[in-house]
Formats: sequence, C-alpha cells, structure tokens
Amino acid sequence: MFHLYDTTLRDGSQQEGFTLSVEDKLQVAKLLDELGVTYIEGGWPGAVPKDTEFFARAKKELSLRNAQLAAFGATRKKGCAASEDPQLRALVDSGAPTVTLVAKSDLRHVESALRTSAEENLAMVRESIEFLRGYGREVFIDAEHFFDGYAHDADYAVRVVAEALRAGAAIVILCDTNGGMLPHQVSAIVADVRARLEKAGLESDRLGAHMHNDSGCAIANTIAAVEAGAVHVQGCVNGYGERTGNADLIPVLANLQLKLGRKLVSPEQLGDATRIAHAIAEVANIPAYARAPYVGASAFAHKAGLHASAIRVDPDLYQHMDPTVVGNDMRMIISDMAGKASIELKGRELGYDLSGEDATLALLAQTVKGREAEGYSYEAADASFEMLVLHVLGDLPTYVEVESWRTSSHQLRDGSLESEATVRLSTAPGHRSVTIAEGNGPVNALDKALREALVDTYPEIASFALVDFKVRILDSQQGTDATTRVLVTSQAPFGRFTTVGVGPNIIEASWEALFDAYWYGLHKLRVAPARESGRSL
Amino acid sequence: MFHLYDTTLRDGSQQEGFTLSVEDKLQVAKLLDELGVTYIEGGWPGAVPKDTEFFARAKKELSLRNAQLAAFGATRKKGCAASEDPQLRALVDSGAPTVTLVAKSDLRHVESALRTSAEENLAMVRESIEFLRGYGREVFIDAEHFFDGYAHDADYAVRVVAEALRAGAAIVILCDTNGGMLPHQVSAIVADVRARLEKAGLESDRLGAHMHNDSGCAIANTIAAVEAGAVHVQGCVNGYGERTGNADLIPVLANLQLKLGRKLVSPEQLGDATRIAHAIAEVANIPAYARAPYVGASAFAHKAGLHASAIRVDPDLYQHMDPTVVGNDMRMIISDMAGKASIELKGRELGYDLSGEDATLALLAQTVKGREAEGYSYEAADASFEMLVLHVLGDLPTYVEVESWRTSSHQLRDGSLESEATVRLSTAPGHRSVTIAEGNGPVNALDKALREALVDTYPEIASFALVDFKVRILDSQQGTDATTRVLVTSQAPFGRFTTVGVGPNIIEASWEALFDAYWYGLHKLRVAPARESGRSL
Repeated sequence: MFHLYDTTLRDGSQQEGFTLSVEDKLQVAKLLDELGVTYIEGGWPGAVPKDTEFFARAKKELSLRNAQLAAFGATRKKGCAASEDPQLRALVDSGAPTVTLVAKSDLRHVESALRTSAEENLAMVRESIEFLRGYGREVFIDAEHFFDGYAHDADYAVRVVAEALRAGAAIVILCDTNGGMLPHQVSAIVADVRARLEKAGLESDRLGAHMHNDSGCAIANTIAAVEAGAVHVQGCVNGYGERTGNADLIPVLANLQLKLGRKLVSPEQLGDATRIAHAIAEVANIPAYARAPYVGASAFAHKAGLHASAIRVDPDLYQHMDPTVVGNDMRMIISDMAGKASIELKGRELGYDLSGEDATLALLAQTVKGREAEGYSYEAADASFEMLVLHVLGDLPTYVEVESWRTSSHQLRDGSLESEATVRLSTAPGHRSVTIAEGNGPVNALDKALREALVDTYPEIASFALVDFKVRILDSQQGTDATTRVLVTSQAPFGRFTTVGVGPNIIEASWEALFDAYWYGLHKLRVAPARESGRSL
Repeated sequence: MFHLYDTTLRDGSQQEGFTLSVEDKLQVAKLLDELGVTYIEGGWPGAVPKDTEFFARAKKELSLRNAQLAAFGATRKKGCAASEDPQLRALVDSGAPTVTLVAKSDLRHVESALRTSAEENLAMVRESIEFLRGYGREVFIDAEHFFDGYAHDADYAVRVVAEALRAGAAIVILCDTNGGMLPHQVSAIVADVRARLEKAGLESDRLGAHMHNDSGCAIANTIAAVEAGAVHVQGCVNGYGERTGNADLIPVLANLQLKLGRKLVSPEQLGDATRIAHAIAEVANIPAYARAPYVGASAFAHKAGLHASAIRVDPDLYQHMDPTVVGNDMRMIISDMAGKASIELKGRELGYDLSGEDATLALLAQTVKGREAEGYSYEAADASFEMLVLHVLGDLPTYVEVESWRTSSHQLRDGSLESEATVRLSTAPGHRSVTIAEGNGPVNALDKALREALVDTYPEIASFALVDFKVRILDSQQGTDATTRVLVTSQAPFGRFTTVGVGPNIIEASWEALFDAYWYGLHKLRVAPARESGRSL
C-alpha cells in the first residue's frame, strides 16, 4: 500500500493568483485521475461554498477510474460534541468516502490559535475520527505543524499521532506546515516517531508526509520521509500552494518511480505527466513554469555550445533520464549563444538536413544573433525560426504585398470604447484590397481586418485559429517607452505553431507575429502564391 | 574554511532566455560581492570573447571587498603539452587568482566525448593543475558528471578526484551535471569518496558540491553534501542555469546559516539577500520568481482565510523564520478568498485602522471579490487596493472629469509607424483641455497626452515617473479576443506604487492603470482638487 495523495484543489489553491471555478476543479480532477493518483482532495465542503458544490457535482459528473475523492475538514470545535458540529456533518454529507481532518499537533497552536487545553485537543482528534468512522468513512489526519511541534514538545506531538491511530485513523500525515525542514532532519524525526509508536504498541507504517517548500526542500523532504518509512505522500501538481508552494507531486512521483523503483502508476500514466501538468496550468491560467523538474519546457533543453556537438553523438550521457518517459522531449535551444552545431540539430528537429551546409549554418547563426539582440526570441517561436531557415534557403514564397495599415481606439463620452483597423494590401498585381474591421481592441481589429483581406484569395486561412497571445515588455524599467515582444500561437490543420514579433509598441509587434502566422501557415499547407497559381482572384 | 562559490556569470548564463552584457556582468559581480560570497566565477576567458573582456575590465573597474574572482576553463587538450594549450594560457592571462577547470570524471564521457583514454584524461587533469600552480594560481577542479561516473565506474571517478588532489588542486568539486541525484544518494557517495581518499592517504576535507535541479533536489543535495563533509558549495543566484537550473545559492546559504548554524556571511549581508536577488533578476531582465524560497515576493505571503485571524495574534507561529532576516517581509494577500480578517490586516499594513469597522470590511471584501472576478488582481497592486479602501471610506477626491480619449497607430507606406493620442478632460468646471501627443506606441502616446493635460493644473505630477509596465493576457486561450490586465509601477517622491487596469483590450486597461497612478499619486501628495483649492488654473 502506498498513497499518492493530491491536494491541488485544496492546499494548492492557497497560492497567490490561483482561483478555480467549480467547472475548473472538475476538469483538474479528471486530469489527476488520468495521472493515476490514489486520492484527490477536492476541497472543504461546508466551509467553502464552491467546494460543497464541487462534491455535489462530482457525485453526478465525475466517474473516476483510478482515484478516490477525499474531503478536507477540521476536527470538531472545542467544547462541543462531534455529532453537533455542522462542519463535521457537512463532511459526511459531501459523500466523499475519505475524509482528511486537520488536527493541531503543536502545543503552542493548541494554546494560542485554538485557545484550548492539550487534553481537549486530543479529545477533539479522537471523537472526530470516531464520529466519521461511525459513518463508515476512511479517515486521514493531517497533523498540522507537526515538525515544529515536535521541536517544541516532541512528546505532545507524538501523542496526537498516537491518539489518532488508536481512534482508527487510517493514516496520520506529518505536516511541515511552515516548510522550514531539511531532509536529514525529516529522516531523523520520522524514524523517531516510528520508534515511539512501536514502543507504544502501535503500527508505525501508517504515516504520511505533507511538505511545503520554504527551505527549497519540499520534494527532498517528501522523499526523505518515504525513505524513513512513510507510505503516503501529499503534494500539488506544479508545486502549487501558499508562499513557496507544496511539494511538487509529479517530480515526487517520478523520483519514487524512476529512481527508487516504486511502481505507483503505469508507464502510460507517467508518460502523460507532462501533458497533464501543462493542462492543469492552463485550467488554472497560470503560465507553466518552464524550469520545472521533469515536465518543464526547459527541463531537457540544451543551450550549451560546449555540449551541443557531444549531444549529437549520445544524448543519454547528457540527461538524467529519458524525457519521453514523462512525455517530455529533448530540445535544442536556439539563442545568440547557438553555434552551428546547435542550429544543425535544431534544423534536423524541424526536418531540414543542414549537415555540411557550412555557409548556410554560419549565416543562420549570425542572423539569429543579430535578431536576438533586437529583442526577438526564437526559444519559444519555432515557426519564426523555421521561417528564417526557409528565408536563408530561398524557399519562402511571397503571398502578399502590404501597403499600409492603421488602427484606432477611442473612448466615447459614455465611457464605451471602439476599436477599428484598416489594412491595405494586394495578393497579386492588380488585386488590391482595403478592408476595415472592428474589434474589442486594436490588435483584435487588426487580426480581423487582415484575415478578411486574405480569405478571398486564400480560403485556407479559415482553418487557422489564433489560440494564444502573449506579451512581454522588454527593458520594462523604461515604462511605456519599452520594446515589446509578442508571441502568437496558432492552431492549423497540421498542428500548433508559434510566431514572434518585436517592436517599439505592442501594435507593431502584434502585426508582425500575426502576419507571420498566416504566412507560415500558408506555406506549411503548401499553398501556392496567388501571383503564381492559376487561382481566380 | 568554507566556500560559497557563485557561478551565475558562467553556468547560470546557460539558462534559456539568459544573456548578460559585459556591463551587466560587472553589475552582477558587484551585487554578489555585497552578498558576501567567497568566489565569483566570471566566465571562460579565451573561449567566450565577452568573458575575456569581463576579466580585463574587472581588473580595472571592480574593487571587490569580500569575494575573489575565479576564471573557468577546461583541462588541456588531449595529446598536447599544457604550456602549449592556448586555452590554459588565456586563463593565466585573465589575471584571475583562482582558476576552476572542468575535468571529466565519467569514463564514458572520457571515451565518447573526449575520445581519449582513461590514462590520458588523468594526465590532462594532473598537468593542467601543475601548469596553473606554476603561475601561482589556486586551482579548483569541477569533476563533471561525477555522480553518474561514480555509478558507472566508481574506481575511475574517485581516481580522477585523487589525481587532482595529489597534483595540488585546492578543492575538487563533485558535480551532479545531469542533476538526477537524490539527497540520501549524495550523502552515501560523498561519505564513500571521503573514505576512499583517506584510505589513499589523501585529505578528505577538500571536496565541494555543484548540483543541478533536474530531480527537484539541488538545494537539498547541496546540503546533503555539506552534512557529509563538503566544504565548498557552488550555486547560482535565483537558481539560474541550464534546464531546471543550478542549486539556488541564497536558499543554500540561508539554510546553512540559519538552520545549520554555519556563519558564512554577516547578518547585514544576509539581510540584503532579497534586494540582491531581485536586483540581479532586474539586470538579467528575467522576472523574479515570486515563489522562490526566502527571497520570493510570495515567500512570506499569506492568503489562507483559515490562518489570517491567528496570524494577527502571533505571526511567528506561521513562518519558518523571521523574513526580515533575509530582507523579506510578511505580507497579507488580498484576493477573492480574503475574509474580513485579512482585509483588516492589509489595511493596517497600509496605515488604515479598520478594526471594528465591520460594515466597511464586509463591503471591501465583497468589492474585492467582485473585481477579482472581472480580472482585477490586487495581489501586486497595493495602490489600487488602497484606492478601493479610500473610495469605500469616502476619502478619495476627484481631480479631473474625463470626457473622452482616442489613440491611433498607422503603418505608413515606407514601413514606419506613427502613434498618437488625444485626451479631453476638465480639471474644474470651465477648465477644459484637449491635448494631443505622439508616442512610440499608442499607450506611450496616451500617457504623454494625459500627462500634458494634467501638468498645468497639477505640476506635482512632473515628479512622477513610470518605471514598469506589465501586461498579462487573461483567458489567453481565446487569442486576441482575451481580457487584458495591465500593471503600472510608478515612482513618486514618497516611493514606488503599483496600479492595475483591466479591460477587453490593452489600451483600455492601460488607460485605467495610468489614470489611477496619477490619481493615487496626487492623493498621496495631499494635493487638493483644483475645483476646491484656490489654485489659479
């Protein structure tokens, strides 16, 4: 028995900037189930209205194949029977087969936050467990502030754990709530807790670990607890959580499964880890952290010129594991440090064999260097890099001649805003079009006007959709006077691709990225330029 | 003796999106010196032209008070005398008193990347050290891929370490180049290496650790190596580095000093850690990671409604250490989860005593909830939150009535772009102004026109400067059709402050954030509205 317990939907949502609707929570739960976690902590029904609704809808709408839902709550109020605490009642009513209760295990918190006695706290733990067990619920106890409590008064902290086990808790989770522990301290404390439990005639293999990352060691502390005998690990996807976050669940899983030989999920589930981490980031609307272990976009990205030529020979010597095992990929980064070897490798990744083409490679390396100095970044814009390659190879056809464009936005006296754009271009000599479009902003209007100007000649563009639009202000210390970089991600029948535009303002940068997206898409669909094809215009 | 060795300027710059000019490198070196690191690895003179220039300029321009510069390089080429290797010569010429040489310690890399023999590699290590020692240089050896090499052929990996120590290397650094180790593995391997060195009659207390974060354990692995006897730790500020990054130097330092009692820097230097980490992020033009341990903007930020009332009583029970020790601060986050207790605390932070004002607190909590649902975020925009408080308290004066504004951008036939904006407003009845301004983009033009419209009546705004401008596209899955959030940071005589604007497009969102910045600034300067003051208009 070993539990992979996810608390993204409860503790993860304490993160700054993190809010999920009920719909979002249902989506995340489905993704966590696909990953193969054992438990999904859905929230605190009864205390948070959104969470009450989540459990109600989950009963009807979620059919989990791997995971079981757990409801989070607290031990009963002081000086009141468990059966009369509406909060405990709501946990039963949620229908969740497992309930995780937070219990104080640091005597200082018992006294200063609960304002009750050491004995009453033990009674709260015992009676709350017995109450829920009476309804057939599996009960887990989150021993809050356990490690700080142990440092302050180890006897009391361990008494709380023992009391919970005696009352029938299936697992007691030792929580480093303030996140300040280091792995060797965790190892020593977990070992001591186990020894004390055994001495008291209790099972010592029903402990779990819940770690926060304040010392930068949440993943390592979780592994240390497991090595010391914990059989249940809690964490959040992408390390979400308050302050510096909770233990990042996927690296914990990958370390346990790939490095310590524990089979927690199937190889297929692990192979979905990158997709699932990114999908959850999308639902949460928080940009996926590129440098995340295992699943980050940069996790297997190599920039070092020093290594690029050796990587060509044997990639396995330069990565700690095969990235495809977690659904990630090795990637060469094209940057101003990119030598010819990296550009050759990147070309191969995109399907261009440039080996031996020394002059082409040198020209490309120089072009990339110059453009990156202006603010371009090809690290995320593979399509724009491919356009550079095509341009240097002389393979990029001209589809349109742009004459001019303009946009304007005006706030009217009633406070409403109008935006419009005009685009003047010709797709072939004598075939000039002037289009105008309104939009909810100047870039949106520009996109619509450009699309309208192109679609008659190139109906293929109707199959393109703009799916992501990112703005980065460079040199942002200069206020509104800064350079702007825009990344546009488009969906086309052949897949997703990203283009980059740079300019002294967002409109100009957006125009470049949008225009290049249509240009690249038409080329990838092998559309012939109007001036060369027999198309009727 | 214990070394805190920073490699931000060398290994850190392998990070995706990371490039520093020579000027930037000099600035970063000064900041690292202020932090009190023992060594600053400046780069690879001779191999990277920018790094050659860095060492040349550092000799003249840098006067370091705490740190010593180290130059990075490689052992001599195979089959050539050390004295004839121009790369080693360049290291001497750099003038750096310490030279760190990368040496292969994994036999597979010796064979497949260097394409030489086990014995020749040992000779390369030995002779390179002797050559540099001949010029009086202190020599450190980075034993590259040491841990993977140890797993493959421990005897050979340790032979490389022993050979380096025998040849006079001051420190041999065990590198987890691929970053896949876990702390208990590091502990066991470092202990074994020490035992083997002692058995060979060599000093075992001249080892260092260089860890990468691919398993999410770089900080913990570094601590584990120190606990096992390493006396030299390498890392990068903000955990910069290739893939998932290098060990994050400041949390390593803080863990060693605050949790394990090693005095590495002075309390004043540690108290500067947050400022220095953020300043280096600014020089590198990479947004500081809010969730970084110790120094992140969120590292001591509390959102949990559950805890807010207890934190009021005793903050120390809710944080693993006092944030001011590293120059950070506890912070309450105002979000849609904020209850009245958090808003009361936040109010106190801003200087408003709202205790007991239940109706005001309830109204504020409800307003924040509603605005955050529209896309506002007060987590980073304290000034906008304060304006809400002032508004609810009825203390926010009206300085202007805005009639309308407009912006336009047009790309001309020659490819150049023009942006202009018009603003119509009145500062008092009968005092209407219509201003027009050009800018390098529509937002810049709008800012200039607004400023010009205000400055005659309110000359105080001449002391405001816009210093940062950030754009975030919300719901970005909807392409250019998405909601936009703009954060504007302004500098005023009383300090820096941030305002937020939200709208269906960037122009509207920017207008709101800009307008509120002037509004907030005037109020903080206690300027009276023109219609009420005796100002001549």
